Amino acid sequence: MGSKIKLGILGGGGDSLIGVLHRVASNMFDQYEIVGGVFNPNWEENIGFAKKLDLPLSRIYADFESLISEEIKLPDNERMQVVSILTPNFLHFPMAKKLLENGFNIICEKPLTTTYEEALELQKIQELTKTVFAVTYTYTGYPMVRQMRKIIASGQLGKIHKVDVQYYQGWINPIIHDAEKRASTWRLQPDKSGISCCIGDIGTHAFDMIEFVTGLKISKVLADLNYLYDDNLMDIDGTVLIRCGNGAKGVIRASQIATGEENSIIVKVYGEKAGLKWEQENPNYLYKLEDGEPLKVLKPGNVYNSDLSLDGSKLPPGHPEGIFDAMGNIYKGVARAIKGEPYDSGEFPTITDGVRGMNFIEQAVASNAEGNVWKEID
Amino acid sequence: MGSKIKLGILGGGGDSLIGVLHRVASNMFDQYEIVGGVFNPNWEENIGFAKKLDLPLSRIYADFESLISEEIKLPDNERMQVVSILTPNFLHFPMAKKLLENGFNIICEKPLTTTYEEALELQKIQELTKTVFAVTYTYTGYPMVRQMRKIIASGQLGKIHKVDVQYYQGWINPIIHDAEKRASTWRLQPDKSGISCCIGDIGTHAFDMIEFVTGLKISKVLADLNYLYDDNLMDIDGTVLIRCGNGAKGVIRASQIATGEENSIIVKVYGEKAGLKWEQENPNYLYKLEDGEPLKVLKPGNVYNSDLSLDGSKLPPGHPEGIFDAMGNIYKGVARAIKGEPYDSGEFPTITDGVRGMNFIEQAVASNAEGNVWKEID
Amino acid sequence: MGSKIKLGILGGGGDSLIGVLHRVASNMFDQYEIVGGVFNPNWEENIGFAKKLDLPLSRIYADFESLISEEIKLPDNERMQVVSILTPNFLHFPMAKKLLENGFNIICEKPLTTTYEEALELQKIQELTKTVFAVTYTYTGYPMVRQMRKIIASGQLGKIHKVDVQYYQGWINPIIHDAEKRASTWRLQPDKSGISCCIGDIGTHAFDMIEFVTGLKISKVLADLNYLYDDNLMDIDGTVLIRCGNGAKGVIRASQIATGEENSIIVKVYGEKAGLKWEQENPNYLYKLEDGEPLKVLKPGNVYNSDLSLDGSKLPPGHPEGIFDAMGNIYKGVARAIKGEPYDSGEFPTITDGVRGMNFIEQAVASNAEGNVWKEID
Amino acid sequence: MGSKIKLGILGGGGDSLIGVLHRVASNMFDQYEIVGGVFNPNWEENIGFAKKLDLPLSRIYADFESLISEEIKLPDNERMQVVSILTPNFLHFPMAKKLLENGFNIICEKPLTTTYEEALELQKIQELTKTVFAVTYTYTGYPMVRQMRKIIASGQLGKIHKVDVQYYQGWINPIIHDAEKRASTWRLQPDKSGISCCIGDIGTHAFDMIEFVTGLKISKVLADLNYLYDDNLMDIDGTVLIRCGNGAKGVIRASQIATGEENSIIVKVYGEKAGLKWEQENPNYLYKLEDGEPLKVLKPGNVYNSDLSLDGSKLPPGHPEGIFDAMGNIYKGVARAIKGEPYDSGEFPTITDGVRGMNFIEQAVASNAEGNVWKEID
Repeated sequence: MGSKIKLGILGGGGDSLIGVLHRVASNMFDQYEIVGGVFNPNWEENIGFAKKLDLPLSRIYADFESLISEEIKLPDNERMQVVSILTPNFLHFPMAKKLLENGFNIICEKPLTTTYEEALELQKIQELTKTVFAVTYTYTGYPMVRQMRKIIASGQLGKIHKVDVQYYQGWINPIIHDAEKRASTWRLQPDKSGISCCIGDIGTHAFDMIEFVTGLKISKVLADLNYLYDDNLMDIDGTVLIRCGNGAKGVIRASQIATGEENSIIVKVYGEKAGLKWEQENPNYLYKLEDGEPLKVLKPGNVYNSDLSLDGSKLPPGHPEGIFDAMGNIYKGVARAIKGEPYDSGEFPTITDGVRGMNFIEQAVASNAEGNVWKEID
Repeated sequence: MGSKIKLGILGGGGDSLIGVLHRVASNMFDQYEIVGGVFNPNWEENIGFAKKLDLPLSRIYADFESLISEEIKLPDNERMQVVSILTPNFLHFPMAKKLLENGFNIICEKPLTTTYEEALELQKIQELTKTVFAVTYTYTGYPMVRQMRKIIASGQLGKIHKVDVQYYQGWINPIIHDAEKRASTWRLQPDKSGISCCIGDIGTHAFDMIEFVTGLKISKVLADLNYLYDDNLMDIDGTVLIRCGNGAKGVIRASQIATGEENSIIVKVYGEKAGLKWEQENPNYLYKLEDGEPLKVLKPGNVYNSDLSLDGSKLPPGHPEGIFDAMGNIYKGVARAIKGEPYDSGEFPTITDGVRGMNFIEQAVASNAEGNVWKEID
Repeated sequence: MGSKIKLGILGGGGDSLIGVLHRVASNMFDQYEIVGGVFNPNWEENIGFAKKLDLPLSRIYADFESLISEEIKLPDNERMQVVSILTPNFLHFPMAKKLLENGFNIICEKPLTTTYEEALELQKIQELTKTVFAVTYTYTGYPMVRQMRKIIASGQLGKIHKVDVQYYQGWINPIIHDAEKRASTWRLQPDKSGISCCIGDIGTHAFDMIEFVTGLKISKVLADLNYLYDDNLMDIDGTVLIRCGNGAKGVIRASQIATGEENSIIVKVYGEKAGLKWEQENPNYLYKLEDGEPLKVLKPGNVYNSDLSLDGSKLPPGHPEGIFDAMGNIYKGVARAIKGEPYDSGEFPTITDGVRGMNFIEQAVASNAEGNVWKEID
Repeated sequence: MGSKIKLGILGGGGDSLIGVLHRVASNMFDQYEIVGGVFNPNWEENIGFAKKLDLPLSRIYADFESLISEEIKLPDNERMQVVSILTPNFLHFPMAKKLLENGFNIICEKPLTTTYEEALELQKIQELTKTVFAVTYTYTGYPMVRQMRKIIASGQLGKIHKVDVQYYQGWINPIIHDAEKRASTWRLQPDKSGISCCIGDIGTHAFDMIEFVTGLKISKVLADLNYLYDDNLMDIDGTVLIRCGNGAKGVIRASQIATGEENSIIVKVYGEKAGLKWEQENPNYLYKLEDGEPLKVLKPGNVYNSDLSLDGSKLPPGHPEGIFDAMGNIYKGVARAIKGEPYDSGEFPTITDGVRGMNFIEQAVASNAEGNVWKEID
């Protein structure tokens, strides 16, 4: 046996949703074999979960340190080639650091770390080790997001002048207005979640989306965050004015108190020649707008799409794929990178994207704290 | 003859679109009779247009001063009871001022004037004369915008925490990137258009929409405007952070370089209990969002709507009405006010709304000029 | 005075919805002046309504016979040039017949008559008198329906192979399941409504729509109608298989028991080269489908539309117009015909369309009665 | 090892799309382990594909007969517990028959067989052996299709009076008009595809969908099929009038010449109390219509959904799942059945649904051949 990439997993056990997402994704193109990991800090749950997955218990470890120390003893063709980090955010840094130092490739959930400083440190090590390091900004894996990137890169929009990305959810609404609930939700505790809730959790997706589809770098931000109650320590809503490297202006709008919204990401990019719109909840429609032309609606799997987009569709047009498929596409790209096969830079976000996301979070929070002033992104 | 209200019109001759809109609207409920006016500063065109409308030429005047001086000589039951001002913006102030001083009711296109100072002056006179003074923020006349206002007023959203209004167009895109074209477009010349293009023309609609539907007052703004080229003197795009009197935060997003967009107004309001969404280009759908409930889509003419909304639908559900009908509803409300009949404050925007709009324009431009700082709305 | 066409109206008084629709429509392009008519068989209501419209009472008549006998005495330049018939269906025939015989142009609501025989008789007279005779299949007045007609006529779809038109409403659902209510609803009484309810009232619209947009003639029908209860004498739902002159097959689906539907007309036409889709409740979107091409969405007022379509839009793109505007377009076309100006055959449906509609109703009912067999349309 | 169900696969090798769909689906809930099969009649390709999947070659067989004869020699806890049949249609019958006779559970692609007679024969054996036999009408696995079924079963629609299901594709359009292409496409050759193309391939989905969501049985059909060219032996379009056991009338509309359509399944069901609408290309929206109520839009994963629907969603609301997830849900249900766990009858279609589908195909073709007459479904 052995043509498949050997994948280890940290976290994602029990009824973890992110665990299901990564497992299904890893399997989608017959590229990975899950060989072991640490699914849960509790040993019995860890083992129980491994049994559920029919995994050999010999490679289920008590903690990530043991995983590393044991796996590196294995011969090359048996050792885990890549480890997916699905644990709570504050564990990303120590795990990724040690894995990198031991030469493992990594697929890490976002946000990359809890501080920009940690992120920079990881990046330095990654640059030295030249390992493959993907950060799962999952939404970039949708075929029509990839198509946006390619359309813009091809110059069809001309110079970009305006970007506007929304990420609205309403999930915190039933919590935030109740003093007890908001005091007991881990997402709202800085020691557990870092310095930001809304911007950190979803604003970063918007930030990454803009840079992913336009190829521009966001250079400055001015943030107006909302904490809603004095005893609430974490932002749960925010509007961020942005400037891009090419002079384009724009806005990131993120909210967790947009009552009744589910997971409403809306991307709008307008250039001199055309505009593009896309909505995550209907991910298989990409709208192209041009002066004096009918609106065009592009759908996955059609011949008019780019190779990068087509590579992300498994079935003929009209057979809707969703977020599992988007994550599957990211795993497919990582597999190519690990195997040393050629791949497109749009196939998966890297540690650089993760680092920029941390930079953004810190500058947005600082901008708000300092009275809604402009702050630079390195 | 005589049960209809006698209406005079200033401007709107020839192939003026705004002229068609007001004429059709005035006729929609059999409430008005157009009796005369000044359609054009050129006498021959003025007369020619009056003939086209089959109007008695005796009440076609050379200018608004003559209109006023002649009309006031007529007996009460013959005199124009209301005058619609459809001329270029800079004429609104002198015309409205003199009409007010002579006791005429007024329907005035927006923006009310070219400066906040003028607007305040008009308001003072209006308060003294107690005339009916409507400002045609047309979009407030849609049945589902009226329904938003009533839903929010009834408390169904609870406390409002977030407002977000978009007004995107792309019409200036083919102009702005060409130095000659942008130098020769009147909308981009301050002497003809006042201090703002995008915020003045469409940002004000967004501002008014927020205040109209929520009943809140916007108290502060921080604007980031885009002029795109150094030789361009007028904003053609802008994002404005806002704060409302009740503490709600929000954003107004306006653009005339949103390539390919036609007239995309999108209103989103989120409160503690529910949210509302509405789009001008599909005006007959109002979306109500609630935690853990199916999305509800309200449509005009249905029994579940408020009286104010139902008053704005002429046909049974499923027979789409549009922007002419929205303006017709405003005219209907003004007719009631003129006749001294009871009416709902949501039936038409007043001079107060017009004044606030001018205040907003000036503060938004100042905020941007001063480096994106907060400015207060009185 | 006098550049406007003199219009008389039969019916449409009181709070008649069809009355509002025609009055507003007639006024939309400053082409018509309502000069009199018979709004109501009750004299006091008739006069009262005329006063509400500020009409000279001298041309308000007791009945259509007096209207005709008096109007023909008037000089050419004062006489009504066209009469709109908005009365209950069974009056269309006698009114139209006598008006035709006296040389009046006619705008008649659909269905044209209550029997095919009557319709043929009217058509014969009309052919002799060469008067203008419009039948208000209102939906053909929408800009994007006109655009469908022109796209198909231009050959962009190639040979048409499949047509599918839906007209679903739910209004009769709260009536039909209650024996008393269904016995007392005039639409369900053959002596008042003719031989068909659903096919007669809305199926005919679907029939006309197919012929209007494709230019094809429907040659055969096989109908499966639903009466739902034995004591119900009128169809309230039906599916009709159709064959067109060119061999294309298709289906008309009409229902008044599609619970919760408002006025859902959906047109789908597929040809060898492309397909088109349009929905009445969102009338400003026309979808064009082609093999291997992005879906194209055409909207009114844009330069890529045909002259016929553009002629039906009053404002720039993005300013939604609705059903009043659709009817306004039909009146505009009739005005051109009356004035002897050039006009496109797509500007208004004629008596021929009305006659074919009656033929369809009778054959559909016969097909069902004879056991769902094919019946020919002449 | 061994908590997972041992799955064998017949067909689906190489770049087979149906193969990917079933493999990903089987993996989605960590319930199955693919242990072997016959992926390809060509031995080298068969083996090559098995290697790609990292499967032990010992359980890759040359043909289904060897698979059966070898697998039955294995002890219970090693033997394949279920076999998925993904081969061309004409092989379904012999494979399923022999598998059934040897006590294997089966997951079979649709159509079940090539004739109704074969289907009945399989059904008899299945009844004797009491094996689990699923037929993958994949669309029934969508959460909102399951929700339709539960809403209707709960009586929320009242008595069903009208059903209307569309299945439109355009894929055969570029083939059918070219005599050479249509002669060389296997789908259009009766010896390879059975007696029907359009009705057999997609009309059956519509038929099954109606019975699945309404719980009604379709009792009669009257079909109008289109072959378009005399030398074409297979229907490529058809409209089928239907009658349900409860007296409800309706229509199935299927086409493969609906130019530009991708995979447009639209389900509409109207009852005395409410209506439901659903579209496959936007599978995460279910529309509920009621007289005098706002339209309600139900989305997956929300608490207001039934257990059956919620069981089919893996992530929180707003994270779109697609067709792979729908198939995954069917596999999950089959896993429960195989393990003897309780499950809902809506979790997967059975051989009974497959048999009825064959009955429908034969009667629809006969109805058309005999001149569009009514034919009964047993």
